[in-house]
Amino acid sequence: MATLGAPTKKHKVTVVGSGNWGSTIAKIVAENTKAYPEIFEEDVQMWVYEEEVTLPKDSKNFDASADGPQKLTTVINKYHENVKYLPNIALPKNIIANPSVVDAVKDSTILVFNLPHQFIGRISKQLEGHILPFARGISCIKGVNVTSSEISLFSEWIGEGLGIYCGALSGANIANEIALEKWSETTIAYDPPAIDSRAPTPSSSQINLTITPADGEHKDVRGRISKTELKALPADYPPLDHALFKTLFHRPYFHVRMVDDVAGVSLGGALKNIVALAAGFVDGRGWGDNAKAAIMRVGLLEMVKFGKEFFGHSVRAGTFTEESCGVADLITSCSGGRNFKCAKLAIERGVSVDEVEKTELNGQKLQGTSTAKEVNSFLETRGAVDEYPLFKAVIDILEGRNTVDDIPDLVARADA
Amino acid sequence: MATLGAPTKKHKVTVVGSGNWGSTIAKIVAENTKAYPEIFEEDVQMWVYEEEVTLPKDSKNFDASADGPQKLTTVINKYHENVKYLPNIALPKNIIANPSVVDAVKDSTILVFNLPHQFIGRISKQLEGHILPFARGISCIKGVNVTSSEISLFSEWIGEGLGIYCGALSGANIANEIALEKWSETTIAYDPPAIDSRAPTPSSSQINLTITPADGEHKDVRGRISKTELKALPADYPPLDHALFKTLFHRPYFHVRMVDDVAGVSLGGALKNIVALAAGFVDGRGWGDNAKAAIMRVGLLEMVKFGKEFFGHSVRAGTFTEESCGVADLITSCSGGRNFKCAKLAIERGVSVDEVEKTELNGQKLQGTSTAKEVNSFLETRGAVDEYPLFKAVIDILEGRNTVDDIPDLVARADA
Repeated sequence: MATLGAPTKKHKVTVVGSGNWGSTIAKIVAENTKAYPEIFEEDVQMWVYEEEVTLPKDSKNFDASADGPQKLTTVINKYHENVKYLPNIALPKNIIANPSVVDAVKDSTILVFNLPHQFIGRISKQLEGHILPFARGISCIKGVNVTSSEISLFSEWIGEGLGIYCGALSGANIANEIALEKWSETTIAYDPPAIDSRAPTPSSSQINLTITPADGEHKDVRGRISKTELKALPADYPPLDHALFKTLFHRPYFHVRMVDDVAGVSLGGALKNIVALAAGFVDGRGWGDNAKAAIMRVGLLEMVKFGKEFFGHSVRAGTFTEESCGVADLITSCSGGRNFKCAKLAIERGVSVDEVEKTELNGQKLQGTSTAKEVNSFLETRGAVDEYPLFKAVIDILEGRNTVDDIPDLVARADA
Repeated sequence: MATLGAPTKKHKVTVVGSGNWGSTIAKIVAENTKAYPEIFEEDVQMWVYEEEVTLPKDSKNFDASADGPQKLTTVINKYHENVKYLPNIALPKNIIANPSVVDAVKDSTILVFNLPHQFIGRISKQLEGHILPFARGISCIKGVNVTSSEISLFSEWIGEGLGIYCGALSGANIANEIALEKWSETTIAYDPPAIDSRAPTPSSSQINLTITPADGEHKDVRGRISKTELKALPADYPPLDHALFKTLFHRPYFHVRMVDDVAGVSLGGALKNIVALAAGFVDGRGWGDNAKAAIMRVGLLEMVKFGKEFFGHSVRAGTFTEESCGVADLITSCSGGRNFKCAKLAIERGVSVDEVEKTELNGQKLQGTSTAKEVNSFLETRGAVDEYPLFKAVIDILEGRNTVDDIPDLVARADA
């Protein structure tokens, strides 16, 4: 019984990326597009960076005739398993692996970005002119881009590149646990400028997400989107609001809380890695659970302060202290995350964190060490280094100017 | 060069209690009374429940002639070690162990309570009429007293019993780690009614700490103190304010933050034990770090809500989300605390938590199970059980009405 003006079109969803976390998110999304056929097209496109894989011979899951290397997209579409990046997890059959990113996003209204941040620039270029102008994005890429002069969010970078609005998803989300449908929570931030299908394109005065750059003038961050003309979603689609995104991502084993604070959600996923290094330092020193908890508490407060200071009123303290993307993600990272483990090993062995990274990580890079360095130079430009004694202690320990034993004294100055 | 009205007297400190945590706090306090001789009398009295101990024969620390059982106070005063409750830790020589609680508190202006809560009533009775009427207390006893009709803080109970004001100390404080001078933090709440030595005894209108009992009427909690006549500290003592208590308790390895929120500090130390049971449940179920972090996040929010709902405006959310007594203590309890461990074992073995308590704890009792039960009956009286889905899930799992697998669904209802 369609009434005048009721949605007649369905949202088409594409997941851009198919690693461990990308495949897990595609699984979640595809379960929901199937569960809500009145809102979404059932098939979910998943862009896969094409490569050749050889199937394990002894597995009952695969065709005995499958000999020699095969294309990863072919394998995913035939066996519904990402054998390379998420092995032994059955993917929904409505995930369609696609080696062409341009073809994968065709006619999609919802683009979910879940790929290593190094690829954002290239992919955005490839997609230019190929996406629906009124599409919306969600970035599942953790972290932020920090230089000495500015901080930009990956979601902004994507949004700017494509001329669309892009929100962010982040939480205490170890992909393998979620793929096994072990319960977890996440936070999605989505707060587009106030236009809808019935309203005109917003003026820049409606855009209020700001950072304070070194020169002291406020800069319009969401302006990156307003430079292009943000297009309203046609009225024949269901509105792209908090309720819709919750419907797309929430599962019985993956609980979603929606917020407006895109900057807070994104910063949490970056700054926690600095804190995790500090937690590893004190644990490696043998100081036990009291000290680890103290590091997390002090780190959480510096995260809040950083968000408030450089992203102004758009950041809520509660995003850090109450949401999965804040305190919960911090706790998992300080419990068994890679930054924590490497920092702990470094202290136990009496070597540098860089040394541990080289010997233990198989060529992979630690996020925390580069974030600590970038955040430090960002703070130096602003003359604000001393207001963040824990962040400063971490870079000073990494670079040999302090030792772990100095931490209590260094952070105490903040309370003095 | 004394000026007119400058303090001429020093504070005398007594620690009431000498267990593991009591002896550790006495060590801290005695280090500071020695470090600040212009404010404190150097000697710190420590009340010790007298018992007989036998010294280990093979230790070089003890006199070879020390044969047979000796009095614990004698041993502490001779060897400066609490061989029974804090072995192998050198105590400062200015701790004076005293078997008479009445004698130990004589002329003391600062009473630090650190003993099992079961003894509060008896000790208060014994002390009646023997303390300085203008003394002040700090309770290091974790938890609160909950019945179906009301919640009272241990600090209030002590304050009421003795007719003095009593604050509270709580944090992520595993005593053995602190005794070894491994770095940790704590929170001290101290917010006496607004009198000082130059002001008259306050009227009850100045007393604003309230709880909302079942009948909906606000009840004056701090009124327990105002029932007696709270006596002002004479002007010849240094004022007993935040700065003074920080001086008394802060050490390079034990960092103190002072707050006003006595109820928040006390509630944190009690409610965290319910959350730790839930963390043990999901960990025992094999759900991993995401789920554990989710439990802590949800639990922290229920702690804040509980404080706000039943202790009104006197409770600050930040006491839970930003202080050692809140988020940090919660993290340590959910990492390796006794409630966490027993709940985890119960799920792994498929037996009840009570069963694990019996077989694993050597007759000691779990705080979490009784707090879960008491808080539940308190909430039932108020018809508020459903507003605390995690607290409810814990008691329902303990009593067999739900299983761990129900947790995600039960807590999701709060966000629906």
